[in-house]
Amino acid sequence: MRAILFDGQLKFLTDYPIPAPEPDEALIRVRLAGICNTDLEIIKGYKGFKGVLGHEFVGVVEKVNGAAQHLVGKRVVGEINCGCRACDYCRTGLGRHCPSRLALGIRGKNGAFAEYLTLPVNNLFHVPENIRDEEAVFAEPLAAAFEIPDQVHIRPTDKILVMGDGKLGILIALTLALSQAHVLIVGKHQEKLKIASGQGVAVVGLTDLKVHKSYDIVVEATGSPDGLTMALQYVKPRGTIVLKSTVAMGAEINLAPIVIDEVRLIGSRCGPFEPSLRALSEKLIRVGPLISGIFGFSRAGNAFDMAKAKNSLKIILDFN
Amino acid sequence: MRAILFDGQLKFLTDYPIPAPEPDEALIRVRLAGICNTDLEIIKGYKGFKGVLGHEFVGVVEKVNGAAQHLVGKRVVGEINCGCRACDYCRTGLGRHCPSRLALGIRGKNGAFAEYLTLPVNNLFHVPENIRDEEAVFAEPLAAAFEIPDQVHIRPTDKILVMGDGKLGILIALTLALSQAHVLIVGKHQEKLKIASGQGVAVVGLTDLKVHKSYDIVVEATGSPDGLTMALQYVKPRGTIVLKSTVAMGAEINLAPIVIDEVRLIGSRCGPFEPSLRALSEKLIRVGPLISGIFGFSRAGNAFDMAKAKNSLKIILDFN
Repeated sequence: MRAILFDGQLKFLTDYPIPAPEPDEALIRVRLAGICNTDLEIIKGYKGFKGVLGHEFVGVVEKVNGAAQHLVGKRVVGEINCGCRACDYCRTGLGRHCPSRLALGIRGKNGAFAEYLTLPVNNLFHVPENIRDEEAVFAEPLAAAFEIPDQVHIRPTDKILVMGDGKLGILIALTLALSQAHVLIVGKHQEKLKIASGQGVAVVGLTDLKVHKSYDIVVEATGSPDGLTMALQYVKPRGTIVLKSTVAMGAEINLAPIVIDEVRLIGSRCGPFEPSLRALSEKLIRVGPLISGIFGFSRAGNAFDMAKAKNSLKIILDFN
Repeated sequence: MRAILFDGQLKFLTDYPIPAPEPDEALIRVRLAGICNTDLEIIKGYKGFKGVLGHEFVGVVEKVNGAAQHLVGKRVVGEINCGCRACDYCRTGLGRHCPSRLALGIRGKNGAFAEYLTLPVNNLFHVPENIRDEEAVFAEPLAAAFEIPDQVHIRPTDKILVMGDGKLGILIALTLALSQAHVLIVGKHQEKLKIASGQGVAVVGLTDLKVHKSYDIVVEATGSPDGLTMALQYVKPRGTIVLKSTVAMGAEINLAPIVIDEVRLIGSRCGPFEPSLRALSEKLIRVGPLISGIFGFSRAGNAFDMAKAKNSLKIILDFN
């Protein structure tokens, strides 16, 4: 099959073996797969992953190794973390944090940048008819945005600042705005900010944002190691900072302001698929404007180049 | 009056002027005052405070400049933060975080290491008869311990690790143990740990603590810039770290584990006096064993030397 492998360098193969599903796994024919910043960080050496990249996808179940035969032929998206299902974490609902978990295209398990992938059937979510493939491929990153209201109480009276106008920052701003809180997104790119303002979110250029500790919640989605230091300049005393950037390097930060202002800092990673699919199905969040390009396998090299460009948002690989 | 001043160096004066209470302030005759680690950090240059040191005290109201004359003669302890009462913070219950606040012996206001101090009458709390002066002087640091359950939901089923067997660490362990959660305190000093174990808290020496991400809540009260990195080795995914140390210097920390494990990091500072005084009055927390020495003014120099020693806990200055 066609597959995009990283083994220290990026390889575009056409003869990679089709994976065999383990017991209670499904074999899924990938339709579309999205390139995430995590993929770009893996290519830089983050986490030392080697194998088929990719964890954002929509596809069709081709085969099930187990009882769940009703899934065959269904269009699905999938939770990327595969816990061991035996440890304390897995047994107490923390499977996404299982220490021996595999993660699709990130940790110990070949990913979605291929014609086929395998996942446990319990990880799969049926995609409603009225969601197009180009929308469904956003189910995973949009789930990561929905992780925030799953962790933090968002009040409709909150003033929220989302820092960063990348793909994730925009999805987060659109998601949090559903609560009717006052959401402001700050970034450097007028064209990207327009996507948020086009759906009713207030936007501001970085140079125009006045420094004032006045936000109840600040979401740090800049991807920069300086993001936290900046967030501390905007969050109210006793307010909340949500950290969405996994920055590869350590950053020099002074913790004293966190204690003095009694700030709450919350790390946030993958999230729940159900609300993500509901929001897509109900057309409450329009992800279409976030697509910067869709590339077939033969142009996958260009897709990665474009994904790295500062002006790009979501780049999608088409494995049809 | 006698007063201990810091103006770049520590000075023990006998002719310092008695302060005059501002409108709606009380003049308080200090009986006992406790030396806090914050005082020792101020002496090292932290925050650049100059003036009379000290913020932990018990005393008697001698005079009130305003209507609250019923307070005269009352034995009191006091909230140390004095907000402006006009800004957005003060008007929304965040007076302890008012940007132009004064703080007794820490920021813009002469403190408690003197025969007399002044505080707004609204900052004062009447001390019940059955609390001795030597206990009442702990009302402020014990309030700082009670800030934790005021910020974080402590479940009776939680596993809690308190890191640091200093004064604050022990007060925190005793306070959190009231919830009937499983509280373990870790430290380097057998004699200090004994004070916690004598009141039913589990203790462990630092070298005997097994590294495992298994605690729902980890309280970082080591006073060391490495404390957070250590706390991250013990907190469960999606667990909570409470930061109680204001470390003067910036620390090199990698934020990625906070995001990956979705840890909640909460800064915690001063706290509520009411529950602190109730716990002292009901003898639920015995602070007596934490006293390493009580020194009169003539031996105040020795008091500071002893407060700096690794084996000391609370040193109290007697201004009677």
